[in-house]
Amino acid sequence: MTAVVKTEAEPGAEIKQVPVPEPSPTQILIEVKTTSICGSDYHIYSWNEWARENISLPHIMGHEVAGEVVEVGEQVTRVEKGDFVSAETHINCGHCYQCRTGRAHICQNMEILGVHTDGVFAEYAAFESRVAVKTPEEIPAELASLQEPLGNAIDTIKAGSVRGKNVLVTGAGPAGLMSIAVARAFGAATITVTEPMKYRRDMAVEMGADFALDPGDDVENHVNEITDGDGVDFVAEMSGVEAAIRQGLRQLTPGGKMAILGLPAGEVTLDLNNDLIFKGAEIEGITGREMYETWYIAKRLLREGIIDLDKLVTHKFSLQEYEKGMKLMEEGRCGKIVLST
Amino acid sequence: MTAVVKTEAEPGAEIKQVPVPEPSPTQILIEVKTTSICGSDYHIYSWNEWARENISLPHIMGHEVAGEVVEVGEQVTRVEKGDFVSAETHINCGHCYQCRTGRAHICQNMEILGVHTDGVFAEYAAFESRVAVKTPEEIPAELASLQEPLGNAIDTIKAGSVRGKNVLVTGAGPAGLMSIAVARAFGAATITVTEPMKYRRDMAVEMGADFALDPGDDVENHVNEITDGDGVDFVAEMSGVEAAIRQGLRQLTPGGKMAILGLPAGEVTLDLNNDLIFKGAEIEGITGREMYETWYIAKRLLREGIIDLDKLVTHKFSLQEYEKGMKLMEEGRCGKIVLST
Amino acid sequence: MTAVVKTEAEPGAEIKQVPVPEPSPTQILIEVKTTSICGSDYHIYSWNEWARENISLPHIMGHEVAGEVVEVGEQVTRVEKGDFVSAETHINCGHCYQCRTGRAHICQNMEILGVHTDGVFAEYAAFESRVAVKTPEEIPAELASLQEPLGNAIDTIKAGSVRGKNVLVTGAGPAGLMSIAVARAFGAATITVTEPMKYRRDMAVEMGADFALDPGDDVENHVNEITDGDGVDFVAEMSGVEAAIRQGLRQLTPGGKMAILGLPAGEVTLDLNNDLIFKGAEIEGITGREMYETWYIAKRLLREGIIDLDKLVTHKFSLQEYEKGMKLMEEGRCGKIVLST
Amino acid sequence: MTAVVKTEAEPGAEIKQVPVPEPSPTQILIEVKTTSICGSDYHIYSWNEWARENISLPHIMGHEVAGEVVEVGEQVTRVEKGDFVSAETHINCGHCYQCRTGRAHICQNMEILGVHTDGVFAEYAAFESRVAVKTPEEIPAELASLQEPLGNAIDTIKAGSVRGKNVLVTGAGPAGLMSIAVARAFGAATITVTEPMKYRRDMAVEMGADFALDPGDDVENHVNEITDGDGVDFVAEMSGVEAAIRQGLRQLTPGGKMAILGLPAGEVTLDLNNDLIFKGAEIEGITGREMYETWYIAKRLLREGIIDLDKLVTHKFSLQEYEKGMKLMEEGRCGKIVLST
Repeated sequence: MTAVVKTEAEPGAEIKQVPVPEPSPTQILIEVKTTSICGSDYHIYSWNEWARENISLPHIMGHEVAGEVVEVGEQVTRVEKGDFVSAETHINCGHCYQCRTGRAHICQNMEILGVHTDGVFAEYAAFESRVAVKTPEEIPAELASLQEPLGNAIDTIKAGSVRGKNVLVTGAGPAGLMSIAVARAFGAATITVTEPMKYRRDMAVEMGADFALDPGDDVENHVNEITDGDGVDFVAEMSGVEAAIRQGLRQLTPGGKMAILGLPAGEVTLDLNNDLIFKGAEIEGITGREMYETWYIAKRLLREGIIDLDKLVTHKFSLQEYEKGMKLMEEGRCGKIVLST
Repeated sequence: MTAVVKTEAEPGAEIKQVPVPEPSPTQILIEVKTTSICGSDYHIYSWNEWARENISLPHIMGHEVAGEVVEVGEQVTRVEKGDFVSAETHINCGHCYQCRTGRAHICQNMEILGVHTDGVFAEYAAFESRVAVKTPEEIPAELASLQEPLGNAIDTIKAGSVRGKNVLVTGAGPAGLMSIAVARAFGAATITVTEPMKYRRDMAVEMGADFALDPGDDVENHVNEITDGDGVDFVAEMSGVEAAIRQGLRQLTPGGKMAILGLPAGEVTLDLNNDLIFKGAEIEGITGREMYETWYIAKRLLREGIIDLDKLVTHKFSLQEYEKGMKLMEEGRCGKIVLST
Repeated sequence: MTAVVKTEAEPGAEIKQVPVPEPSPTQILIEVKTTSICGSDYHIYSWNEWARENISLPHIMGHEVAGEVVEVGEQVTRVEKGDFVSAETHINCGHCYQCRTGRAHICQNMEILGVHTDGVFAEYAAFESRVAVKTPEEIPAELASLQEPLGNAIDTIKAGSVRGKNVLVTGAGPAGLMSIAVARAFGAATITVTEPMKYRRDMAVEMGADFALDPGDDVENHVNEITDGDGVDFVAEMSGVEAAIRQGLRQLTPGGKMAILGLPAGEVTLDLNNDLIFKGAEIEGITGREMYETWYIAKRLLREGIIDLDKLVTHKFSLQEYEKGMKLMEEGRCGKIVLST
Repeated sequence: MTAVVKTEAEPGAEIKQVPVPEPSPTQILIEVKTTSICGSDYHIYSWNEWARENISLPHIMGHEVAGEVVEVGEQVTRVEKGDFVSAETHINCGHCYQCRTGRAHICQNMEILGVHTDGVFAEYAAFESRVAVKTPEEIPAELASLQEPLGNAIDTIKAGSVRGKNVLVTGAGPAGLMSIAVARAFGAATITVTEPMKYRRDMAVEMGADFALDPGDDVENHVNEITDGDGVDFVAEMSGVEAAIRQGLRQLTPGGKMAILGLPAGEVTLDLNNDLIFKGAEIEGITGREMYETWYIAKRLLREGIIDLDKLVTHKFSLQEYEKGMKLMEEGRCGKIVLST
């Protein structure tokens, strides 16, 4: 089959012919319909430090996927041939303290599809049946593969209570853009976004933000104006930038909360006294997405049209054209990029 | 001043000239702009059992109100002459266990505006300054007086988590209709309503419900179809009808929750084993509205246009025409009825 | 092997020699060390209506157990030969909405060990490895088999916030007695118990209750005295008696909560207006126990000696003497009864 | 009357005769029975940077207090002459977003008793009646004045769920010592304390800690051993030391939580990726104490003897001997120090 394979310990990847994987007794094999590119795919492509430490070569890239089940291992009962599925990419152990207490997304022995295993930028992919998520046919394949990253945004926004509240989103990359749509859907009163790139600020407004500011603008003044001087109730930190974390915390009203999905490049210095302790504020780290609560929510929001991700998909390519996507990712001039097989 | 006064211990009321009330040192006096009719006003008008037990005559009716502050008592600091305000109708004591632990809406020594005190169906009204809620001028007066009942709907819906969930609303009177709008705004995936009156089912759809059924329809089958057989996650019980409570509980998915705002006429018989205990389900009683959290939410939702209550206001009368409103309330052929002074 | 087998559709059971069960590929076989008698075992023994509807004959009784793993099916990885284990008796499907969202204890396709499968009143027992719970050797076998019912009490008490609060427990059977110990361990300020049997009231005090009343006493007056007139914050309903549910709800302070573990004999009539809605109170049904959160808590509480269940074990018999235990269960003159093999 | 007065902008204070304060219409006057010394009193005494910025001279010191009401302002209704009271030291405005939504302890316009107003190290003290908290006579005066700092410990511990969980307390000053007692009372399975001073480690064990380590010990190894390698569920950060915050976060199990009461001297650098985000962990800032939920809890815990603070009171002096207390505070060789008038 055709696949996007990382073969060398350097930037880049290549289209190769490789054998169709054979599912183990607990796995399924799917025929891939659509995949989408995540930031971590670009990290693997560009071979950054994290990729160098985590990826064994050769490696089939990709993890956001939708496709049809064409084969099931002998012990598989949850899904059947012909099912239309997407995949949770966190393959949890099922045995640890977190897995046994309803917190599988923070399993102590996690494997990640497309990172620790071969991925889905290919005509076929095999993975554990328990991470397969059946998807209603009403959801088009290209949106089905977006359920996984949408789950991150859902997990971030549902970490707070945004209904009727003032919300700040710091960073409008694809995850930030989705979180805007989710915050809007969950009843946020106002949504302000901070983002340095004009392209992304424009997309933020299109996804439902009320205000899109450059981080260099007078954000504090803006927040005071729209919140009667109170500050925002919730911040979704989607940028991974220290200055954004600090700016976001400062805008919180006492008792407010920040959820952080963005990964800072290094350690982060905070004014805990003024920005957290005296305020009685909270910070919560978000990783992966609650399994499988977020998938149920994502599926319903997409099926019922509560969230519309069409405008988030800015580019569609064939699998063979994946490098066009990687180039756009590098420039940041894109929403989500979908690859069809 | 002109006021709607209940003078006799029998159905009815009358338009009378009465003295403008004088605010105490802790009260304010407002010039009433708009009021709206609540079910309990109709109960007082029709002089039902509850009214007979709770109302001292003569009595100025009404409690949902918006107006301008024209006088403030000498100890008042929170509001000023000229402020545009609405009123929380629960006048809490401030001293009891509930008041001292952030649960003022279930104060043990509650007085209710327009029930235990004279009300607002008049040209002027006086009440404790601490229950006045300043309202932004962007919110038109007729919607401003709806903040109070909207708060009940907000409190009911926020008793559960409806974001991305399947919701059932039993009863589509004004409170039920508002709760539909709130559930929609807070991200419900599907909203089903059960309501025997066709007029109200039609309004339910207009307010955002996906499905409006007669309680005699096969509700269970419908719920199973739209929830993949799982049942609904949340029920907002707005009818006060025993059969609706029972039907609602039966539709709950295991682990689901019902919030009850409707007041049953008498005691209620439940199948706790099957409908609550084996399901690990929850029931929460809703009374009044969280003070003042729900007011902040209501204000923001209305100001930002997240919730549109225009279509809920089916009739507008002058204060003098209040009896037209009472007649419509009797027939149930109305949404909210607004009275202007 | 020797086992307690229900062979006839009538009250009673018999000691029989039966084959040692063979574990399936996903099961384990344990050598039983200790079992304990649950109320539902007595229901099967006495062949009540529930038993007649749910039990297929012949049937090995029992489900509370501790023992040593002596054989594991070929697909089993979680446990090994030699492990000391107890068993969660709820064998969840793993596939339904509840199982996939961290609520396995309310699985839609539940099988119950010792109800839908053969049980553990035997020298050996086989069950799914995923419901096996490894238990530290510091916990004696007879307390290890009590972890399962202790989990019910933990789930009931943690449904509320009892730290520094006034708590009422209605019913002091074994489950009620455990819930007293748990409420005490979790920081309840006062614990009042209502229970008609003097034997159990005495045990209630021994387990840590501050006050043990007959339900016919003036419970309301007592509660008012010890709570400064506020009412209790939390009620653990462990009796399944309608009058106790009603009495418990009446004692709740506004905003309080009742968790119900006791199963009423039939439908229950409640004054929802006064006891739930106007109070803004909550009722939550408890079934099984949160998997496996309650097991982690139970294990730690027993290992660290935070909860002492020694005095709860009022009788110890050999497996052959099980009928002595059933007789005591009938009379209600016992705490927990342990059977050793 | 005699009072401890800060008169000069330099370290120290003096015993002076000053006029008995006159309560305003909304205030009460109490005859002080007992006070206790808080860390912030020592900061004022030693005239550190925070004190220099916040204290206007001359200034009567002290805020932890118990006494008898001897006079009430004319608008006061909550308390009466003869009542035995303690005082919440956070005098909230009552009008801001936080005050109006049940979060008075993080009021945007807070005044602090003994900081922004004259304090209680005196024979008499006057303060707003609404911050007076009636205290049952069963609680001895010297423990009554400890309710206020006990409330901080309660607020810190109840920020997490410690029932049946493994808990780490970083720092065993008076606040840390109280939090140990609270965590024990609320059902923690194990309590580990890190603290560099041996005197305090010994006190930690006396207050109920299972393990008291020096921060330089191999804390990680210890935590792994007692938690089966999982890490602790909850950290109460009571030291204000950056290294302790970092060490504490590292010990958290995925999904765990840290509550921070200790105030760091400056900004703090954190490894958010590994210690918060990948773990899905939470940090919550604690300031003051929930008003007045923590007071109800403190009162009940002390009245019922659930928490015993006797051993925490290591020194008792007369008001005149206050300097002995300040010296002990400087050395850190004390639990709580009580001053009687």
